[in-house]
Amino acid sequence: MPIPSFKDVNVGDTLPALRVAPINRTTLALYAGASGDHNPIHIDIDFARQSRMPDVFAHGMLSAAYVARIVTDWVAQPQVRALSMRFTGITQLGHEPTVTGRIAEKFEADGEQRVRVELKCSNQHGEDKIVGEAVLALS
Amino acid sequence: MPIPSFKDVNVGDTLPALRVAPINRTTLALYAGASGDHNPIHIDIDFARQSRMPDVFAHGMLSAAYVARIVTDWVAQPQVRALSMRFTGITQLGHEPTVTGRIAEKFEADGEQRVRVELKCSNQHGEDKIVGEAVLALS
Repeated sequence: MPIPSFKDVNVGDTLPALRVAPINRTTLALYAGASGDHNPIHIDIDFARQSRMPDVFAHGMLSAAYVARIVTDWVAQPQVRALSMRFTGITQLGHEPTVTGRIAEKFEADGEQRVRVELKCSNQHGEDKIVGEAVLALS
Repeated sequence: MPIPSFKDVNVGDTLPALRVAPINRTTLALYAGASGDHNPIHIDIDFARQSRMPDVFAHGMLSAAYVARIVTDWVAQPQVRALSMRFTGITQLGHEPTVTGRIAEKFEADGEQRVRVELKCSNQHGEDKIVGEAVLALS
């Protein structure tokens, strides 16, 4: 898919949504190994229970990576100028993250044409887990 | 290490820095598998060269995960209210990310005591790759 150009995108346009397979223990074990984040709260059910959580839960940055991916599936990574996220809920085992994005603004800054994209990661129950936005340079 | 309390931290305090081993092709292959981001620009040198890059380069969200980790090494993940990052450079193979953090503000919002932490990820040559900030709730 060609990279979108500034003139061809409009406020209100949506990015192709990303639906991720349900989070399971293997997802979290793989992410721990790859990211180097070995906090046992994400991989050790005994530790999680001792910490008064019902079970392990996903690394926040795993969900954040899904949020970033609908952006880098749409434009090339070097076009990403900024990314900000608010974490509004914990992603549990079995949750199926869906990420959506919508162009909220077109503007110029630092001599570049840019868009601001509103982003959201929700689970299959419609619970928001991350709300964020990205600023992208488009030519 | 106990989680820091609001009264015991001060503006200007630094978080324990995180130094990561040099990024190599295995790091990126593992991260691709764990995150589900299989964009070949990060794992296939031939594809990268066809895209006029000298070689593959790191997923931006891998560096972002390192930035987040000094935060979640310091407090528990559910205390993270927001995270924002500006991407100021590409992390290449062989780069050794170092992440630093500094408390920039203490404030109250939404009935919580919070701190704003300035974050930076640089490589061994002192080049900034990510500049960001986190908002954390402390009790």
